[in-house]
Amino acid sequence: MQRFINNPDEVVEDTVKGFVKAHSDLVRLADNPRVIVSKTAPVAGKVGVITGGGSGHEPAFIGYTGRNMLDAVAVGELFSSPTAKSFYDAMREANCGKGVVCLYGNYAGDNMNVKMAIKLAAKDGIEIATVVANDDVCSAPPDERHKRRGVAGEIFMWKAGGAKAATGASLEEVRATAQKAIDNCRSIGVGLGPCTLPAVGHPNFRIEPGTMEVGIGHHGEPGVRVEPLKTADAVAKDMCKIVLDDHDLPAGTDVAVLVSGLGATPLNELYILYDTIEQEITARGLKIHKTYIGNYFTSLEMVGATLSVMALDDELKTLIDAEAHCTIVV
Amino acid sequence: MQRFINNPDEVVEDTVKGFVKAHSDLVRLADNPRVIVSKTAPVAGKVGVITGGGSGHEPAFIGYTGRNMLDAVAVGELFSSPTAKSFYDAMREANCGKGVVCLYGNYAGDNMNVKMAIKLAAKDGIEIATVVANDDVCSAPPDERHKRRGVAGEIFMWKAGGAKAATGASLEEVRATAQKAIDNCRSIGVGLGPCTLPAVGHPNFRIEPGTMEVGIGHHGEPGVRVEPLKTADAVAKDMCKIVLDDHDLPAGTDVAVLVSGLGATPLNELYILYDTIEQEITARGLKIHKTYIGNYFTSLEMVGATLSVMALDDELKTLIDAEAHCTIVV
Repeated sequence: MQRFINNPDEVVEDTVKGFVKAHSDLVRLADNPRVIVSKTAPVAGKVGVITGGGSGHEPAFIGYTGRNMLDAVAVGELFSSPTAKSFYDAMREANCGKGVVCLYGNYAGDNMNVKMAIKLAAKDGIEIATVVANDDVCSAPPDERHKRRGVAGEIFMWKAGGAKAATGASLEEVRATAQKAIDNCRSIGVGLGPCTLPAVGHPNFRIEPGTMEVGIGHHGEPGVRVEPLKTADAVAKDMCKIVLDDHDLPAGTDVAVLVSGLGATPLNELYILYDTIEQEITARGLKIHKTYIGNYFTSLEMVGATLSVMALDDELKTLIDAEAHCTIVV
Repeated sequence: MQRFINNPDEVVEDTVKGFVKAHSDLVRLADNPRVIVSKTAPVAGKVGVITGGGSGHEPAFIGYTGRNMLDAVAVGELFSSPTAKSFYDAMREANCGKGVVCLYGNYAGDNMNVKMAIKLAAKDGIEIATVVANDDVCSAPPDERHKRRGVAGEIFMWKAGGAKAATGASLEEVRATAQKAIDNCRSIGVGLGPCTLPAVGHPNFRIEPGTMEVGIGHHGEPGVRVEPLKTADAVAKDMCKIVLDDHDLPAGTDVAVLVSGLGATPLNELYILYDTIEQEITARGLKIHKTYIGNYFTSLEMVGATLSVMALDDELKTLIDAEAHCTIVV
């Protein structure tokens, strides 16, 4: 992979510096240089909403900071959890006294560091609630949903949580809504090509040409099967079957749909996938209320795509349609 | 390149189908299946604003259709001009009787087809004005600016033209403002890796590992030099020097800056480039009014980035800040 980088060990530092400069209308850097804060945070009378995660998934996580979205984001090294201190500092930045909800993904490092951050916040009297995203269907069977990883469905959780907090809801109300959003969401990834951590210099996994990895994770975690690369039509059908079979929704249910590229897949291919995804979803009697297509949650230059489907009740429909300001259309 | 496609000859057809489904809140398909129309078009009392261009540059061109942006877009095959008929149909869809401005890029096929479309429109009594984007600095020397190609600076032209039209301005006023926008804009591309047309199956140009092509065009057109791949810092300095030397702006000038990925370059690398770009621009005494970073104008899975800088007067500053609705934050 040919790259625009300086020192491979300073990729995150350089990224954050450029990000804060580019979006100074939306965000500022905290005293902790691994914490991005919304220009509007902390908002008086509002529950703070934060997340955190490894770098290399841009625009996730930092790109979702802004009004009615995330108040603060803790930044980890590439594909690594932010430190407990960074989660804690994000909590402090987002807190206006009404408590902070931390909406993050189910990874061992994040779980551990968020737990430690909560203890630090408790000493300051900051009340923290958490929701742990586990939308990645292929990362564990249905009876072990608590073991599943969080992937692109986190964006729905942030949007719903951010919009709910903006209504002036209590900490418990915001937590419950964000939990409902992720409970209502299922995702799957398909990988066609690997990515490389710049400081490592070679891919940390392989995908043989002519094959694809169904169920791949956001860091190249193995999926449920490797199979010959099929047409977009067949791939889209597979993705829909896995996602929709796992979450059997009654006909007539409204859904939001997100098709995200993993980094190096051209946007037109996501639209090609969506043409069939739309057919599959509507064939089950589901009603597509809103669609997002683009590089919403990436993995450096991984080739591939993810599909996330969230069932909407009236509350989630209102929240997903609410106005929000960040670096990408949400 | 491993891809999500069906029939390689139907990539554009499948893309457009998926696009129109995904963004039915913003756009509709015209009777001509190669014309995307804003849901709001034609807007009574408003000059129509259209463009057109080859596919494979998504979100350009179709992704910029919407309220206060483009009223209609003619869609070409991959890297090929739309037909005269498609440009003509886009003009008809955008026209409310006040005329239509066609804001497109300087390529032989587009020039020819727009000319023919204007003749067809004239028979219907539709008045057409045109602005031909030529922001790509490296595609011809300063004394032959009329030969330069249009690249990512077109987005500034569309935003300014779309916002001006939304004020109720006349055809000539909209044309003059869009012309000013592109006259005030300079762009450069740097390529680190080629792309492949799916139906061809191999890259139509080569970039040797360890090298980069400075001044590359949006279809892999050769740049001004091939040189060893440098650090992001050095590349950003080169890009700024070429763009800013070509357009010598007095200190204190406000500018808008766009750093676009070419398809397969991860977003974090664009921020790394921007960290230095911001230093270089402000070191010249220029004031950055607004910044756009992301995959705004791509070339399939080309690895690389473009930089566009537009000088802003008071009018352009107002227009670039105006609210607009399309698939991407503009």
